[in-house]
Amino acid sequence: MGVLGASGYAGRELCAFIQSHPGLSLAFATANEQRGTTTRIGGKDVTFVATEDAKLNSAELIFSSLPHGASKQWVNTAQNSGARVVDLSSDLRPGNGCEGIPYGLTELARPAIKSARLVANPGCYPTSAALPLIPLLASGEIQGADIIIDAKSGVSGAGRDAKQGSLYAEVSEGIHAYGIAGHRHVAEIEQELSAAAKKPVVVNFTPHLMPMSRGILSSIYVKLNNGATAEGLRDTLAAKYKDEPFVRLLPNGQAPATRHVRGSNHCVMNVFADRVPGRAILMSAIDNLVKGASGQAVQNMNVMCGIAETTALEQEPLFP
Amino acid sequence: MGVLGASGYAGRELCAFIQSHPGLSLAFATANEQRGTTTRIGGKDVTFVATEDAKLNSAELIFSSLPHGASKQWVNTAQNSGARVVDLSSDLRPGNGCEGIPYGLTELARPAIKSARLVANPGCYPTSAALPLIPLLASGEIQGADIIIDAKSGVSGAGRDAKQGSLYAEVSEGIHAYGIAGHRHVAEIEQELSAAAKKPVVVNFTPHLMPMSRGILSSIYVKLNNGATAEGLRDTLAAKYKDEPFVRLLPNGQAPATRHVRGSNHCVMNVFADRVPGRAILMSAIDNLVKGASGQAVQNMNVMCGIAETTALEQEPLFP
Amino acid sequence: MGVLGASGYAGRELCAFIQSHPGLSLAFATANEQRGTTTRIGGKDVTFVATEDAKLNSAELIFSSLPHGASKQWVNTAQNSGARVVDLSSDLRPGNGCEGIPYGLTELARPAIKSARLVANPGCYPTSAALPLIPLLASGEIQGADIIIDAKSGVSGAGRDAKQGSLYAEVSEGIHAYGIAGHRHVAEIEQELSAAAKKPVVVNFTPHLMPMSRGILSSIYVKLNNGATAEGLRDTLAAKYKDEPFVRLLPNGQAPATRHVRGSNHCVMNVFADRVPGRAILMSAIDNLVKGASGQAVQNMNVMCGIAETTALEQEPLFP
Amino acid sequence: MGVLGASGYAGRELCAFIQSHPGLSLAFATANEQRGTTTRIGGKDVTFVATEDAKLNSAELIFSSLPHGASKQWVNTAQNSGARVVDLSSDLRPGNGCEGIPYGLTELARPAIKSARLVANPGCYPTSAALPLIPLLASGEIQGADIIIDAKSGVSGAGRDAKQGSLYAEVSEGIHAYGIAGHRHVAEIEQELSAAAKKPVVVNFTPHLMPMSRGILSSIYVKLNNGATAEGLRDTLAAKYKDEPFVRLLPNGQAPATRHVRGSNHCVMNVFADRVPGRAILMSAIDNLVKGASGQAVQNMNVMCGIAETTALEQEPLFP
Repeated sequence: MGVLGASGYAGRELCAFIQSHPGLSLAFATANEQRGTTTRIGGKDVTFVATEDAKLNSAELIFSSLPHGASKQWVNTAQNSGARVVDLSSDLRPGNGCEGIPYGLTELARPAIKSARLVANPGCYPTSAALPLIPLLASGEIQGADIIIDAKSGVSGAGRDAKQGSLYAEVSEGIHAYGIAGHRHVAEIEQELSAAAKKPVVVNFTPHLMPMSRGILSSIYVKLNNGATAEGLRDTLAAKYKDEPFVRLLPNGQAPATRHVRGSNHCVMNVFADRVPGRAILMSAIDNLVKGASGQAVQNMNVMCGIAETTALEQEPLFP
Repeated sequence: MGVLGASGYAGRELCAFIQSHPGLSLAFATANEQRGTTTRIGGKDVTFVATEDAKLNSAELIFSSLPHGASKQWVNTAQNSGARVVDLSSDLRPGNGCEGIPYGLTELARPAIKSARLVANPGCYPTSAALPLIPLLASGEIQGADIIIDAKSGVSGAGRDAKQGSLYAEVSEGIHAYGIAGHRHVAEIEQELSAAAKKPVVVNFTPHLMPMSRGILSSIYVKLNNGATAEGLRDTLAAKYKDEPFVRLLPNGQAPATRHVRGSNHCVMNVFADRVPGRAILMSAIDNLVKGASGQAVQNMNVMCGIAETTALEQEPLFP
Repeated sequence: MGVLGASGYAGRELCAFIQSHPGLSLAFATANEQRGTTTRIGGKDVTFVATEDAKLNSAELIFSSLPHGASKQWVNTAQNSGARVVDLSSDLRPGNGCEGIPYGLTELARPAIKSARLVANPGCYPTSAALPLIPLLASGEIQGADIIIDAKSGVSGAGRDAKQGSLYAEVSEGIHAYGIAGHRHVAEIEQELSAAAKKPVVVNFTPHLMPMSRGILSSIYVKLNNGATAEGLRDTLAAKYKDEPFVRLLPNGQAPATRHVRGSNHCVMNVFADRVPGRAILMSAIDNLVKGASGQAVQNMNVMCGIAETTALEQEPLFP
Repeated sequence: MGVLGASGYAGRELCAFIQSHPGLSLAFATANEQRGTTTRIGGKDVTFVATEDAKLNSAELIFSSLPHGASKQWVNTAQNSGARVVDLSSDLRPGNGCEGIPYGLTELARPAIKSARLVANPGCYPTSAALPLIPLLASGEIQGADIIIDAKSGVSGAGRDAKQGSLYAEVSEGIHAYGIAGHRHVAEIEQELSAAAKKPVVVNFTPHLMPMSRGILSSIYVKLNNGATAEGLRDTLAAKYKDEPFVRLLPNGQAPATRHVRGSNHCVMNVFADRVPGRAILMSAIDNLVKGASGQAVQNMNVMCGIAETTALEQEPLFP
């Protein structure tokens, strides 16, 4: 296995997962600016090489967590070297003009992933929103309009590059929205939701930056179609995910918390009846670096390689 | 001035404001469990007495930040002693069967406050939601249905009593919603909004607990009435609040952050056009302990006593 | 395996470790106040029973993480039921009049632990201080006087009981020392250090409470004996711990951080030459709930039961 | 008044203090990279100019919070323009070859500051260490050797420039030492302590980076000279600082916390008897951006300009 772009938070996690994966080994980990340096990851020393120096043909499968925009060309090169690829960037996700590439929401796309040579790994926000929404749009219980997704993310979602806006003293003890009405994840979300609903779905998606390192909580406000009830929505999600190792519907009334999933590949979700008739509230929580990035990428790799899907992903949430 | 219930976060702030208020002095500060103990507040030592031992008639105006439920009777007693009263509990707020008592959203109710012997000080959540919503409901630019208020609060809102759910290790590095579809603040919010709209307004209000000590950010998703635009909403709020010392509409496009108001009596707000036609997003941020509790209480006291409204409330936000 | 006192942070971790331990199962988990309630721990539902209702004889080995003072009697009862016991409380640690019971600093006491029916599991502070100090006192390279241990601990060390001093709003964005010159861990530390030095060792130990959930960093200021050097100290620690899976001397010059060990059973340490001749600085970091409590308890259990010592403790640190 | 280097945390605070200062106004605020941009500081809009475009001769007194190394030349230029100068950089502090310039520990150097045309404003670490140590070295009660200063600092001390090591996800939930045995503040500290002791004083100074935005706690371990006691040390500090508005000796036994001083120009300190005979522990806490930087700079300006020393510095600590 190889990792392109291994010095960021997601790339680092990928290296750790590969190293803890029985039977797999890390052929290379690239990081241009840190080429030649050695870092401790997952209990072992990893020496970064430049991306152009990586022996791409030494890896059966390559993960790219290169930056958005820079990933596409290397995915191409990696494929030409004969490797299967899981791309964690947004370059090849739906809504970016690259339709036809399997979109790796593992629980919802296993058949396509299994035989894919290339998988576009979902973004963290879309993962947290799509897992509860897709089954309910597919079942026709909720309306495709007036969906409000109010998402709260930890700071690691902004990456490991030094940016003033991600400094401790700028982020601690505060919260604010960003990219209001214009966040690049919207196209990706709407495309997947529309496919599930079999009609155009339009969402309001508003991300917020808050003081935590890991985690996304999506609070989703929806309108019910005639005859639908919050209990029915719970039943639909319960049926959909009852055998899934990584998706868990919480007991009735229990609010999902990012602390329920920190450091794990789990998504916890729940449905609440609203005080307002005809409305319901969906809540879902994931670790943005695991189920929202590297963990789901490894889950997809396991599916692609015919390995048991939970392999190397058994870590339970760390609390407190 | 006297403070009933001075050992909590809001009561402590009240004492500090009174001590920094030129010309006023603190006649008594009550705290039953800590009676007899001395604490440093606002640069001076304050010795707590039991509520029943307070010389109520030694104070011209009394603040009650006693717990919800316990406050009402002492407000009564304080009034009987001849004092004017600002009650910070929810006991006498609208929606609790105590209509007719002026509701102290200062900017929106000065005439009633000025002559009141008793003011019900608004809750922190209602303050953050009502300040942007009331002018827009009054102007008829936004619909009274489908209002979603997704609020994020710091932990001090849960009070200073020892509760497991407020422990550092339970709150740090995470977020979750609570009181979903049932929060006690909803009646207070809806009553005020309905009065402004002159028709029943129903809201979804969902509070979230997040790791910060102070602050509330309310992200409010609204539908526009025919002909209304986000720019028009901004104009309405700009006109309404242009001379207000404590309410500030941010420059176009700038997202309110709780860091803009920490430690101050300010509310910052803004309006954003949604990607979805016919919708807009309102954001407002306050410090829950200041504009959301003690600061607004002092602001109301200033109005009641004919003192310049900003007196003792000049503190600018502390950043970082 | 059984866990007495499973509702606290350490007890919860014990349950999680047992559940992830191949071949072991959790016979009971006690929590008096939460008897009958079911909690999700380590991916499984755990139902608490009252301590008096636990079938002690159904467990081959019992962990007690009952509160200090309350543990001793139950350790006795558990032993009478035929179980081997690892006691995480301070009741049976050195300095409490219970000498002769093996003290479970695993790396330094394997032979005694292997055959023990009862092990006193070390406290978190003593573990972080003793691991670097004991080999250097045993080698005679550092003086037994003028040892300053300035320790910084996360809040989970204060337990999960609701206490005002552990509230988020009291702890966040601040630091202070506590129990200055009188912390109950000192006797435990000095006894072990004196045994290693074969003469009385006296330390200054000053714990500080800081805003993190997990972790202890001990900054230890020592005087060198004649001829000793910081490099020599590093060599001694390197030799002592070179084959240890859980103790790691960092590369020369690299400062231990609690982030290096969060969620893992590792201790990282290092030695630094001081600017002041004849002095050196030792730094060591552990996760207080793992190597400082439950992880080391499981490590001891593994040794007692003849299981590979790292079983169930393979979790690498979670970063960020 | 003018501020050179106003876009950092300390420069920003300087602007805020000047704007709240009755009778003073902000003639210019420079920030090269942000020239032309307008920022809200202290309730007013401030437009930055390039340092070279600042009208230095329009200000009677100029603060420089330019980076270390870059400040010296501009201090020179500013003086040539006729302005008095308070330099917040380390360029002109003792130990940097610039002796003879008054060192602005206000409480300990008022006469020199009063008539100075140029004051070197102390660093945050030296301020926190020197305020308790200098009177005790001057009195001869503590030894000049074996002084251990274990300092814990918030992240704003590292400045507002984007650095990976200051990112939220790198700093949150952890602690580590840095610059061990080599921190640039040592020369400054030792020079001032030696002057007080009238003999060379050598200290171990070890700074730690911890997750808080503001604050420094210095835990200082000292040896007593013959006949000295912890009580005596308290008496000395009490006498020294009894009339000081910004330095406060806490009641006996109470541990200084950074929360006692956040956002204020105060230093709180205390003395504790050690368990080890002949030793004592000093603790002092300041806000690194206020008493450790801008606040003390304004305090010095007040002294230089013959203004009441507490003017614009009345802000009480913000808690929680």
